[in-house]
Amino acid sequence: MPTLEDLGEKEVVRRILAMLEDNLPVGPGDDAAALDIGDRYLVVCSDIVSFGTHMPPGMSCRDLGWSAVAVNYSDLASMGARPMGAMVSLALPRSMDVDDALSIVAGTKECVAKYGGELLGGDTKEGSGHVTVTALGTVAKEGIMLRSGARDGDLLAVTGRLGRAAAGFLALEQGEDIPSAKEALFRPRPRVEEGMLLSASGAVTSCMDISDGLAASVHALSRASGIGFQVIREAIPEGVEVDEVEGDRDLMVLYFGGDYELLFTIDPQAVDRLYEAGLDFSVIGRARGTDNILVQEGEIVKLEDRGHEHFRP
Amino acid sequence: MPTLEDLGEKEVVRRILAMLEDNLPVGPGDDAAALDIGDRYLVVCSDIVSFGTHMPPGMSCRDLGWSAVAVNYSDLASMGARPMGAMVSLALPRSMDVDDALSIVAGTKECVAKYGGELLGGDTKEGSGHVTVTALGTVAKEGIMLRSGARDGDLLAVTGRLGRAAAGFLALEQGEDIPSAKEALFRPRPRVEEGMLLSASGAVTSCMDISDGLAASVHALSRASGIGFQVIREAIPEGVEVDEVEGDRDLMVLYFGGDYELLFTIDPQAVDRLYEAGLDFSVIGRARGTDNILVQEGEIVKLEDRGHEHFRP
Repeated sequence: MPTLEDLGEKEVVRRILAMLEDNLPVGPGDDAAALDIGDRYLVVCSDIVSFGTHMPPGMSCRDLGWSAVAVNYSDLASMGARPMGAMVSLALPRSMDVDDALSIVAGTKECVAKYGGELLGGDTKEGSGHVTVTALGTVAKEGIMLRSGARDGDLLAVTGRLGRAAAGFLALEQGEDIPSAKEALFRPRPRVEEGMLLSASGAVTSCMDISDGLAASVHALSRASGIGFQVIREAIPEGVEVDEVEGDRDLMVLYFGGDYELLFTIDPQAVDRLYEAGLDFSVIGRARGTDNILVQEGEIVKLEDRGHEHFRP
Repeated sequence: MPTLEDLGEKEVVRRILAMLEDNLPVGPGDDAAALDIGDRYLVVCSDIVSFGTHMPPGMSCRDLGWSAVAVNYSDLASMGARPMGAMVSLALPRSMDVDDALSIVAGTKECVAKYGGELLGGDTKEGSGHVTVTALGTVAKEGIMLRSGARDGDLLAVTGRLGRAAAGFLALEQGEDIPSAKEALFRPRPRVEEGMLLSASGAVTSCMDISDGLAASVHALSRASGIGFQVIREAIPEGVEVDEVEGDRDLMVLYFGGDYELLFTIDPQAVDRLYEAGLDFSVIGRARGTDNILVQEGEIVKLEDRGHEHFRP
């Protein structure tokens, strides 16, 4: 019998998704699920963060709590939803300091207070150190953004600047103190306002967050929309932090993950609406053909489909 | 610094609850939180079940998945809500057999299919073996049942028969094969239909589930409502399984927990509505005074406030 390690996270998740029904307006497999509650969609998502895999040295319990909400709010943002709140469930070792446990809750509360909604409750049990957050939000039915809407000729764009979380991780490994890179890694900022703005613009045809890395996300958007993307390497906005650490730029910007920016496609006829709205975003390519390619220094190369994956060593 | 073990689950949860705001129609501290979504309340709850503490020998992965949904649907039922669905997040060891992991999902799906709603999605990460479910439901605003509504003179009642899960646990320990007791322990049946019926009756003044044991739940209802209860020991309906194992009857029926029945109070003027609705329930006492007492063989004794508690050895 294969183990989870043998298969790897993506194949395990694929098999789980295959077991789920699909009677929902937006089913499992997108960043979040959507339920019809009358005039709007209720958007729901869950993400687990763990002491082991999501807590680099120097990250505080408060940062971990913040991150647990932030990664979920990023999924709400990718659908264009306004947050209603978060359920926070803690599986904690009995030997844990009570103040550390309360710091996790304080971090979740801080992130909720910053980005909207309420801390709704949760559960606390004995365990090896996991924080599971389920976030809820609502979005106008006509405003919901999915992974599947990209069409031939659409512009491909991202919010913010990439590679910052990766630079933070490498800086830690190298013993370098780069505060803004550390901040990017420990205190990810979900693009909640930007997601609502994209949704309201009516100019966006598909959207997701790039938490697993830009390259893996372009491939995911491509699979969901059934179209390829041409990405211009030089057009990808890079955080200044990328210049401040030693390391492979492409790894940081394309493959590492941990940047909670939004990747989206724009109807080219309507792109002015986003500029007029004052949104900070960069066009990095367009939808065209069936393959996902990277134009780098004038050369066309294949955009590799790799990023962060769990269960694998 | 005290650890979680030093304080015990109840005090840890009390300190966490003290950190949460209370801007909600129903805040953290009840069985679930409620959010205003226009014409109805959205009811949300989360519960974690773990391989270690919630999986006695002989319980299958499929049973565990079922239970993870059932305990959450029981919380929805206690508020009178109709289930919309469940998010299921898995923190699993990488050495786990893939078929076992998929069996957990199959169990959650089976319970959702039985009691209503959809499996909405979730997350899968590496961890020590926890299933965190967040369940969602809706209830009419005037029909929501809280812990806090019991009034002097109200009747105290429970659904079903008690001590069955405890009998199942003891039977396992004693190597006895009592199928219905094992079923009660491994496949708890949330009182979803009963909860909706209680809610619709307009006769119920407060409600909660008795997952932590009847005695602990009477005390919790008492604290939330600010009134004491007189419980008649002989009026408590016992499962036939209680007769079939060796063990302390009071432990099984009053203190052990694991029975997912509803404990509720009834306006005595309106009790006929529940009989007319054909509900299977038993009146076990009434709200009176400030203490929680047990009338046992004609003697009045104090009802002890003890039940299941995590973090403590």
